[in-house]
Amino acid sequence: MARENVSGTVKVLVFDSYGTLFDMRGVTAACERFFPGQGADLGRLWRARQLEYTWLLSLMGRYVDFWQVTERALGFACRALRLPLADSARKGLMESHLRLEAFPDVKGALDALSGYRLAILSNGASWMLGEVVAHNGLERYFARLVSADEAGSFKPDPRVYNLAPSRLSVDPAEMLYVCGNSWDLCGALSAGLRGCWLSRGEDPWEELGFRPEATAGGLAELPELLGRRKGEADGHHAA
Amino acid sequence: MARENVSGTVKVLVFDSYGTLFDMRGVTAACERFFPGQGADLGRLWRARQLEYTWLLSLMGRYVDFWQVTERALGFACRALRLPLADSARKGLMESHLRLEAFPDVKGALDALSGYRLAILSNGASWMLGEVVAHNGLERYFARLVSADEAGSFKPDPRVYNLAPSRLSVDPAEMLYVCGNSWDLCGALSAGLRGCWLSRGEDPWEELGFRPEATAGGLAELPELLGRRKGEADGHHAA
Repeated sequence: MARENVSGTVKVLVFDSYGTLFDMRGVTAACERFFPGQGADLGRLWRARQLEYTWLLSLMGRYVDFWQVTERALGFACRALRLPLADSARKGLMESHLRLEAFPDVKGALDALSGYRLAILSNGASWMLGEVVAHNGLERYFARLVSADEAGSFKPDPRVYNLAPSRLSVDPAEMLYVCGNSWDLCGALSAGLRGCWLSRGEDPWEELGFRPEATAGGLAELPELLGRRKGEADGHHAA
Repeated sequence: MARENVSGTVKVLVFDSYGTLFDMRGVTAACERFFPGQGADLGRLWRARQLEYTWLLSLMGRYVDFWQVTERALGFACRALRLPLADSARKGLMESHLRLEAFPDVKGALDALSGYRLAILSNGASWMLGEVVAHNGLERYFARLVSADEAGSFKPDPRVYNLAPSRLSVDPAEMLYVCGNSWDLCGALSAGLRGCWLSRGEDPWEELGFRPEATAGGLAELPELLGRRKGEADGHHAA
């Protein structure tokens, strides 16, 4: 159930990728294939360090791209869990990020929202975003895949969020950022973007001093939240 | 066993506080007192969010001091674990940070190292550091308690590490930062400090692109690492 409505004109919708459009559980499944019985532990620690390294390296002013961050985090996680990491496993695990599946509600929501300009704003390197979007056959929906790499820093650095209105040439007041990670949405709100929280799981909202403009339990609720009338959608349908 | 020696002149030793001098397990014990059976889970989640919030708020440019960060992280952790947080519990849990016990090797090591100028560099607010140092009767050892609050940001922001040589008026080449958290030590090394890793636990070194100058398994190894002769220590004993 949509819990609030988005007020004011929205022309552009910008989505986070990992955890918002694409299901990170594909990484855990790959961990389980290479390390049977340890997939959950490895997946959890790898993801935790992947995020932490984005924050730490950004704060240190030592940016390296998301692929390298991901590979370093994998190396740490395997050492911490005493899992020997063969080259073939490293390759397979890393590439699982390029073949994540979109959540089941993505395709239908993007179809219903195609009257808007749509884009992605992600920590992922541009080529990583291109691959996971293509893997899911979603290329035609997005006007632009914006990568944190273009700012040389990671979320929640405001320079990353500022890329979205700048690259899409849109007034931030006419843009809505949709994100499944509440820390990330807080970063966007702090940088002056408008934001809708996609609350897919059980995690409560983070205590970072910001509140979302709206909250949706799934992407299917977005059209309703945006107060969109059916006729308008049909009239503006782009392909 | 000391695994390397520190080379070159060191005149000033700067210690991290939480996890280096003071044992954070005191916080977990307080969690267990207020929420029997849930202390470990609450302690773990609270500590994780406490650190994450320091990184996120610093990157967002939304610094609030460590006491407030700690209180926000507690609020999140209790909501996530569905633990009702009464005011008395909030107060007791927060204040556990002011009454952490020093690790058993701290007092002896500080005595053995008192020929050096000693200081603390911590995320903790100055008054929090003052309280925990006083609780352990360690005031006389430290020339200065340097707080991240003086930089308005948290580790690993280089501005925090730069406070140490600046506030202590020492050349970074003559200062050694001693820290139990490898991400923190990486931040210090990245900012141009010299660093010794105090490896108290099982966690491997983080993959953040830096290596420590030396590694010690406990503070008692520091004098040996510093290549200090007994006579020299006796001759320069201060306080």
